[in-house]
Amino acid sequence: MPQLPPATPGDRLADVDTPALIVDLDAFERNLGRMADAVAMAGVRLRPHAKMHKSPIIGLKQIALGAVGVCCQKVSEAEVMVQGGIGDVLVSNEVVGSRKLARLAALARQARIAVVVDDEAMIDALAAAAATAGVTVGVLVEIDVGANRCGVAPGPAAVRLAQRIAGEASLRFDGLQAYHGRAQHLRSAEERRAAIASVCVDVRHTKAALAEAGLACPTVTGAGTGTFELEAASGVFDELQAGSYCFMDADYARNRKSDGTFFNTFEHALFVSATVMSTPRPERAVLDAGLKALAFDSGPPETVGIAGAVYERPSDEHGCLDVTTCNARPKLGDKILLIPGHCDPTVNLHDWYVGVRGLASSQPRVECVWPVAARGALF
Amino acid sequence: MPQLPPATPGDRLADVDTPALIVDLDAFERNLGRMADAVAMAGVRLRPHAKMHKSPIIGLKQIALGAVGVCCQKVSEAEVMVQGGIGDVLVSNEVVGSRKLARLAALARQARIAVVVDDEAMIDALAAAAATAGVTVGVLVEIDVGANRCGVAPGPAAVRLAQRIAGEASLRFDGLQAYHGRAQHLRSAEERRAAIASVCVDVRHTKAALAEAGLACPTVTGAGTGTFELEAASGVFDELQAGSYCFMDADYARNRKSDGTFFNTFEHALFVSATVMSTPRPERAVLDAGLKALAFDSGPPETVGIAGAVYERPSDEHGCLDVTTCNARPKLGDKILLIPGHCDPTVNLHDWYVGVRGLASSQPRVECVWPVAARGALF
Repeated sequence: MPQLPPATPGDRLADVDTPALIVDLDAFERNLGRMADAVAMAGVRLRPHAKMHKSPIIGLKQIALGAVGVCCQKVSEAEVMVQGGIGDVLVSNEVVGSRKLARLAALARQARIAVVVDDEAMIDALAAAAATAGVTVGVLVEIDVGANRCGVAPGPAAVRLAQRIAGEASLRFDGLQAYHGRAQHLRSAEERRAAIASVCVDVRHTKAALAEAGLACPTVTGAGTGTFELEAASGVFDELQAGSYCFMDADYARNRKSDGTFFNTFEHALFVSATVMSTPRPERAVLDAGLKALAFDSGPPETVGIAGAVYERPSDEHGCLDVTTCNARPKLGDKILLIPGHCDPTVNLHDWYVGVRGLASSQPRVECVWPVAARGALF
Repeated sequence: MPQLPPATPGDRLADVDTPALIVDLDAFERNLGRMADAVAMAGVRLRPHAKMHKSPIIGLKQIALGAVGVCCQKVSEAEVMVQGGIGDVLVSNEVVGSRKLARLAALARQARIAVVVDDEAMIDALAAAAATAGVTVGVLVEIDVGANRCGVAPGPAAVRLAQRIAGEASLRFDGLQAYHGRAQHLRSAEERRAAIASVCVDVRHTKAALAEAGLACPTVTGAGTGTFELEAASGVFDELQAGSYCFMDADYARNRKSDGTFFNTFEHALFVSATVMSTPRPERAVLDAGLKALAFDSGPPETVGIAGAVYERPSDEHGCLDVTTCNARPKLGDKILLIPGHCDPTVNLHDWYVGVRGLASSQPRVECVWPVAARGALF
């Protein structure tokens, strides 16, 4: 049973219950617009990753600004997107298991569905599931371009899989996925440029091998918020999968641009609000948001508007702020905004987005409450 | 909207969709029985922490074996427990904010409710909320016994709060909470013994100060799975709050007993099952369970039954297993059981428990599917 929402449209920000996921709607909309402009200028398509926001409402806003559909990482996420009105979903991930494949194939009756593979056995199982359901599923071959996770080697191994896909009546060969996850968080622009240059060599080489085998490669897809400008300008990518750009987390803000300044193309638009629930000593303020309200895999959250306050350590339901060096120390009951270290797993901990208009104004108000509809979509 | 369950009673374990939270019912029931025996022998009460399991079904099983009620960390968790039929709940945490206090007071109409405080302003707000609702709420004073989180100093500061509680018609002074969270994970028995000995000095000192002020101290509550035997034998604790003992995670299993062997009073009864979704290179198997299916704050999960396999690094929906040194390397589609590093935040990522009977047998079967009813109960 999902939790009751922490707010109602019209509420003042100060009255939103905590911990809650707060969206600064003004910054969020500017972020959506900036990305739409960037991909339009570059002449590439945007298929934003919905594994980050898990919300068909947000996906439809992205599509209204030109995105061609969304990416998902799980079949159950894709189901939520299709139920929410999105007609074109790429599951940018390998899908293994008969139950998942049957669900994926069933979804292809309602929407344009594609999926990625990196193994011949997957192609056979997918072809059988699609044939049983009487549908056609698009398939892209994932190549490992440096992420060292999934994906076959670029070149001949990818061609062999593409040929096998092309030989299946229930499948449609849609192209290549070349996503370099680790490159997104390389801190210097030079490192990211070198990584994506290497990705492009792999993609060109694989496209040439496909052409030699007589196979067209309709789409090359990849990229994230940290590198999307490089893939967009590469001439070899057709679609970009960036997701975090909507919200920008503390970790992406640690990336540097080529002039050495911090990456600020997008604004922080996602916050977790927390209440000071205990002030047992002058130097410590305890917040009501810990491991169950925030993700810590990319470091602790940053505090907004309290110079010197450092989120020191989480426990399950608590966060200890060190306020030793603060001039104005937070008081019991104060509400504080935190910028999550990593937005994707933070969003997945919450049932609701609370959309706030005028966050920077003196009268921030709740405008909307959206479900995190695909939260917990693990399958 | 919660996800569909990954299994149906009667299913074979091999057919449970992944990633899923698997309970070894046999080990779980043995763990419940061992704790019930231990507290009965020691002559103390058990009030297990439901922040760990978030399930009234499990809470009722604990009560059936003698527990006096459950602890919760959040008001919204307590609501789920009361809705599920539990009649006695201690919110073992400070509650700040008028919305939360109104919900807490409303709950006291349906069940015996208590809460902890560490500040005079909390007592005033709680008394007002209880008076408005026309209920009596039990209140315990939290003292900081070394956790360096919430709680007033032992001694006079605690007595002042107790006096204030005793002076409010809508509140009932129930005693002291003295929980040393950090002591739970001290690795050697000597360190844990020293930490809890110090806790007991603080508690005795505070109880004496309360007696001097003419205040009875009905209950001293605290303890966790790592130290419960010490508090049970101390003569100063009346109630134990241990929660993880039901499931035992990888982190608790790193504690040592006084003879130097690993802490094995309880068995691992909680697992996350995962599927091998990609085997791109001989030395790597990629699982479909990452940051959104497992908590990593206490280290990565351990694999069951694949000697040499090491869960190396998670990403949002993937886990890379290094299988270099495995004799029998996992194959695409294999299902693997993982022991979570930390059970509490892992449980909170899932909508369903899949209870399996005969996990160690050749025919493990799903016996029950229980909702993680208070998952996401943040408020």
